[in-house]
Amino acid sequence: MNDFPETSITPQRLALLNRYFEAANYLAVGQVFLQSNPLLQEPLKPEHIKPRLLGHWGTDPGLSLIYVHLNRLICDTGASILYVTGPGHGAPAILANLWLEGTYSEYYPEVARDANGMLALFRRFSTPGGVPSHVSAQTPGSIHEGGELGYSLLHAFGAAFDNPDLIVACVVGDGEAETGPAAGAWKSTSFLNPRRDGAVLPILHLNGYKISGPTVQGRTSDADLLKLYEGHGYEVHLVSGDQPAVVHAELAATLDTCYARIRQIQIQAREHGVTTLPRWPLIILRTPKGWTGPREVGGLPVEGTFRAHQVPLPLARTDSTQLKQLEDWLRSYRPQALFGAGGVPDPDFADLIPAGERRMGVNPCANGGARLVDLELPDFSNYAFDVPAPGSVRAEATRRLGEYLRDVFRLNADEHNFRLFCPDETNSNRLGAVFDVTNRCSMRSVTPADDHLSADGRVMEVLSEHCCEGWLEGYLLTGRHGIFPCYEAFATIVDSMMNQHAKWLKTSREIK
Amino acid sequence: MNDFPETSITPQRLALLNRYFEAANYLAVGQVFLQSNPLLQEPLKPEHIKPRLLGHWGTDPGLSLIYVHLNRLICDTGASILYVTGPGHGAPAILANLWLEGTYSEYYPEVARDANGMLALFRRFSTPGGVPSHVSAQTPGSIHEGGELGYSLLHAFGAAFDNPDLIVACVVGDGEAETGPAAGAWKSTSFLNPRRDGAVLPILHLNGYKISGPTVQGRTSDADLLKLYEGHGYEVHLVSGDQPAVVHAELAATLDTCYARIRQIQIQAREHGVTTLPRWPLIILRTPKGWTGPREVGGLPVEGTFRAHQVPLPLARTDSTQLKQLEDWLRSYRPQALFGAGGVPDPDFADLIPAGERRMGVNPCANGGARLVDLELPDFSNYAFDVPAPGSVRAEATRRLGEYLRDVFRLNADEHNFRLFCPDETNSNRLGAVFDVTNRCSMRSVTPADDHLSADGRVMEVLSEHCCEGWLEGYLLTGRHGIFPCYEAFATIVDSMMNQHAKWLKTSREIK
Repeated sequence: MNDFPETSITPQRLALLNRYFEAANYLAVGQVFLQSNPLLQEPLKPEHIKPRLLGHWGTDPGLSLIYVHLNRLICDTGASILYVTGPGHGAPAILANLWLEGTYSEYYPEVARDANGMLALFRRFSTPGGVPSHVSAQTPGSIHEGGELGYSLLHAFGAAFDNPDLIVACVVGDGEAETGPAAGAWKSTSFLNPRRDGAVLPILHLNGYKISGPTVQGRTSDADLLKLYEGHGYEVHLVSGDQPAVVHAELAATLDTCYARIRQIQIQAREHGVTTLPRWPLIILRTPKGWTGPREVGGLPVEGTFRAHQVPLPLARTDSTQLKQLEDWLRSYRPQALFGAGGVPDPDFADLIPAGERRMGVNPCANGGARLVDLELPDFSNYAFDVPAPGSVRAEATRRLGEYLRDVFRLNADEHNFRLFCPDETNSNRLGAVFDVTNRCSMRSVTPADDHLSADGRVMEVLSEHCCEGWLEGYLLTGRHGIFPCYEAFATIVDSMMNQHAKWLKTSREIK
Repeated sequence: MNDFPETSITPQRLALLNRYFEAANYLAVGQVFLQSNPLLQEPLKPEHIKPRLLGHWGTDPGLSLIYVHLNRLICDTGASILYVTGPGHGAPAILANLWLEGTYSEYYPEVARDANGMLALFRRFSTPGGVPSHVSAQTPGSIHEGGELGYSLLHAFGAAFDNPDLIVACVVGDGEAETGPAAGAWKSTSFLNPRRDGAVLPILHLNGYKISGPTVQGRTSDADLLKLYEGHGYEVHLVSGDQPAVVHAELAATLDTCYARIRQIQIQAREHGVTTLPRWPLIILRTPKGWTGPREVGGLPVEGTFRAHQVPLPLARTDSTQLKQLEDWLRSYRPQALFGAGGVPDPDFADLIPAGERRMGVNPCANGGARLVDLELPDFSNYAFDVPAPGSVRAEATRRLGEYLRDVFRLNADEHNFRLFCPDETNSNRLGAVFDVTNRCSMRSVTPADDHLSADGRVMEVLSEHCCEGWLEGYLLTGRHGIFPCYEAFATIVDSMMNQHAKWLKTSREIK
């Protein structure tokens, strides 16, 4: 155990973290490749391999690494943490972790936490009638679709608004980080009030590659990355490495530091009246793409390159060399030591599985429907204009709507469950009556010349349709209410976002 | 003149710069307010004021400031500079400068460079049958529509690709800077090769406010802004102030520094074989919104606040106090000293007007149609598959298209006028044959594990549909050719961009 650097977390705990990480990796690889022999109780044969290999391995080890470390943090602190998975096709890692912690089997009893269930987990992955290769509405504990990239951080902030006890851990991949909406999302801290809102802990995971090329930030120096995110207003923590032992120790210690920082910020705001914009922690994590997978295939480097993005051994069913490589890879995790003969995860893992609703697969915030409190709405007929004769009254419909919304704010003030998200147009859309009862929100300095601007405002104005729509989606999916007023001409800026959100809602309805 | 700080540019020149700046401001205010009495040869009366006041004053002084300083730089260096106007409704400033330099009258002889023309300039602004209040296809020297914000910097980079002698000065407002696409555009330097491409000089203009609230970056400390843009890879120059004399001196000196830096980077790349990513200069300019306009109106502060955004004296026609304020404001620029009795700009201004095609209103790069060289296209019938009997041949259409595109690259190699812009999908869209003749483009480090990646690649892969579409638009509007392959599901991410581009093309067709 002496290869673990010194830390407040014991070497035994770090070794267990690594075994849990290996278990998750094993389960991710199994989902991509296996249709039988899930525990490798017999030598791997071509017929054990799925006829069509789909799914993405590259991002999985990073997602599992973060998942298990968050588990550890939750176990040690009792924190309520929601996991938002930015990387597109990371479902194998998330499903693996849900199965390990037991929440997947609670939602899907047909996928039990044993050998049969493990096989079911493998077989249903990316199969007709099964589950998608990206995180979706079917994935317990999720509020974020892993399809069109760019919105994870916005959803995370939307979830954190008015959820003071929640920490949203949001993994942003370096592919997603190249999108405009993601690049524009970092400023969200300017609108997050530690007094009334929860926290977002962004974890920028740089594994260096997209589908077939390197990422911009993967090739950016640490010095520039530190500046970039410090410039965005964060306190930046860099964790980097390709040796699991070193990375486990550093990441665990860094998460402890970030958690302490978050609580410190919240205590300052809530108990000591500090109102200035804090420097929230942010983690930059550099680990190899497809970490712990095949180093080389057919003479070409794979681990740590774009070739690890999808299926690193695409010919495993037909090429005996690749089949052997797959078997060696799977056995490198020592499945018999991770799972008993019956396929049940090692009971020691219980030490890394949070209790009850603290498991990330069943965090109540991810189940917005169950948390929803209906808005109290005024009778709209009270807002009618009296029009004694045609053409005799001059009035504006949206100005009246502003009065209605003002009263919605009033009636639901105690629930803290309604906000307006608007790209700097509340007044020009004639909804200004809402400013009778609330303000624009900003955590940055307020000057005497400003109009209705304060840290506790419930009108979220930012000149970004993507921010408005993304925050609103995160706010809605965690069981609250909101409106996004927008000039008609600019509404199409977010139509693809709306489509993806509508798909989520549709799928949600089809789930029991 | 001794209130100008010491600089290599003479105090006389700075004083002239300021007078030119005042002339542009006068003309911008005139466009917003006046329908007669353009030179204020008689006292201002209500009937001189337009019945409906439209347009945006707030951003105009900043745009004019930058315009006249670029004029000075062009006069001193002979540089070819294209001006891209990010701020949405800045047309009054741009039209003022085009009229001053004479290019507007060349395109629109009915708007001559005299008193009658000045009145025509004022009257056609934001009037039915006139010109829009934002920069549009009708605006000489422009390639960027000031409607939906977020794309100016992308257009600027698209224009600079394969235009080695061009410098694109791109003004990004702090409103636009909040959008996702703009936030994601800064990374474009990673794809700009100083050996073959021109330069982009971004000028981030922070006047602090949007329509009704402060901007995030306007309220960000200088220290954080420096880090942010250094982290993006730039060499950052900050110019800040509310005293014209100081700002003129600092901005002139900063532009000289930036220009020298750009030429130095290009010489390093072109003559000394330097291939690493340079730190391109970037200017952050902080001046008050609505600078030189009314300080207060009705007891409320206006200059330097959001109230300067649009029409700062909305009741100028009906309220005698506001009318008087408007007259004082206009006369503060001393129109009789700026324009002779006939309305012709002071002949001294000629010293700040570049020669011929170097005037930004007629930079040839802004007139893509005139520069267009038709692509040489292979005969598509040569790419047909021979299908002797139905169902007897297995082939992929897009793979064949890749071969066709490969040959397009080959046939037009000498013209340097064709690129592929793709969100990391060239291979997965089966267009990989293009890599027989070109590479993916990256100015960042290249490792042995990378596949077809080099600084001179003509396949622009970045995981941002906004970057791809924006670069392509800039590339097309400056007279070149390109394709944006994209998964169908993600094409809608940029449908509003496409709409705006289509509007530009439609309007272009209607212009003589």
